[in-house]
Amino acid sequence: MAATRPVTAALIIIGNEILSGRTQDANLPYLGEGLNQVGIQLAEARVVPDDEAVIVDAVNACRAAHDYVFTTGGIGPTHDDVTAAAVARAFGRRLVRNPEAERLLRAYYEETGREVTPARLKMAEMPEGAELVPNELSIAPGFRIENVIVMAGIPSVMRVMFEAVKASLAGGVPILSRTVRCRLPEGIVAPGLGALQERFSDLDFGSYPFYDEGRPGANLVVRGTAPERLEEALRELARLVVELGDTPIVDPTD
Amino acid sequence: MAATRPVTAALIIIGNEILSGRTQDANLPYLGEGLNQVGIQLAEARVVPDDEAVIVDAVNACRAAHDYVFTTGGIGPTHDDVTAAAVARAFGRRLVRNPEAERLLRAYYEETGREVTPARLKMAEMPEGAELVPNELSIAPGFRIENVIVMAGIPSVMRVMFEAVKASLAGGVPILSRTVRCRLPEGIVAPGLGALQERFSDLDFGSYPFYDEGRPGANLVVRGTAPERLEEALRELARLVVELGDTPIVDPTD
Repeated sequence: MAATRPVTAALIIIGNEILSGRTQDANLPYLGEGLNQVGIQLAEARVVPDDEAVIVDAVNACRAAHDYVFTTGGIGPTHDDVTAAAVARAFGRRLVRNPEAERLLRAYYEETGREVTPARLKMAEMPEGAELVPNELSIAPGFRIENVIVMAGIPSVMRVMFEAVKASLAGGVPILSRTVRCRLPEGIVAPGLGALQERFSDLDFGSYPFYDEGRPGANLVVRGTAPERLEEALRELARLVVELGDTPIVDPTD
Repeated sequence: MAATRPVTAALIIIGNEILSGRTQDANLPYLGEGLNQVGIQLAEARVVPDDEAVIVDAVNACRAAHDYVFTTGGIGPTHDDVTAAAVARAFGRRLVRNPEAERLLRAYYEETGREVTPARLKMAEMPEGAELVPNELSIAPGFRIENVIVMAGIPSVMRVMFEAVKASLAGGVPILSRTVRCRLPEGIVAPGLGALQERFSDLDFGSYPFYDEGRPGANLVVRGTAPERLEEALRELARLVVELGDTPIVDPTD
């Protein structure tokens, strides 16, 4: 509900292991928070299998709908790493061995006394014309082509890649949020919260329920771009919780 | 690569709080594993905001493409809970107060001495003709309409709802998996693993790399439906790791 159209992004999480439940994704929360900091809203995420055709469709749907698309996973040396091939196909570009990526990989393996194998050089294959996304942790780079940024799935590697591109992203005004935690059931909070949403129509109010030691509670969150409006809304959320007979918990570092 | 078309499902995770990074989804891994046990493959997941139009599109895309669609989140009493309205719209059905859900909610609140508010009765609103999905934890039910199953977002509640419908799902042959963990870099394992994938074309091999104390390793996973084929493939994976100079770690309870 900002005055101007928000800058949005999509995340495509690639990997059978995420869908089978054996690996828990840890990249979405990191990316969601990191994008918020630069004024970009993560508006959608998709988890897709290691299947080239499915990845092509997801990349094309997301890059048409959002300012940025990030992918994680599927850029390693094994047969099930098909992300680079899929992104090349999505853009109708050839998959080529990127000379700069090849140079980095060869130098790294030679320096550390490891063999330069065809499997390892597969990690230099990218769509023609892709720009490298540096990987200071394990060298094998990600890449960017137009608005699509391809990153590793291993969280520590994904993070150094995201931090490397973050400053180059054209975001809008950062989206701020404040939270009031309460031990009231949502059913009690709902009318007052709905009234606040109507009154502060430039902000977004959300209620995120939880159970803690068998008792219900809710995090009441307000999001927006104007700090003074958020403070005003925060005060009203606290007032609502007090009026309903509970003590509002407000994290000052939130 | 099973002989018959696998039974597939999609999960739609609904909630701004997941996309902003403030809440980590815990339902996908649970659902992925639970569906595997009844022979259903979680083939896709989407995370979407609390936005009715976006949810309608996701539900309609997923219900056309998969045997089952599960949703989590957005069925509480607050203004940002729009899942039931969205699912009704996706099916072109009216949103009505379900008499059975209303009866359950009234009885529960009266019994526990709590007020029956309009906000709380909002949790009885469902698409016309929906079947209830029981919630033995906090009463407010989920619902099912055709192949779409609507569940709560709170993990403990989602779990009792999923367990309540699990036996009614028409799955295929359960998908089994075995894993060999090794401390070899993927670049070394890739050629042998690719050769095994070609040789055992009825199975799916995956490699999931990790860093542990600064050293690379990989979980080599094989998936399929025939136990004896999996055992054969597991033995070959272990042989590959030994030949490459490492000790294969095989979890017997895997």
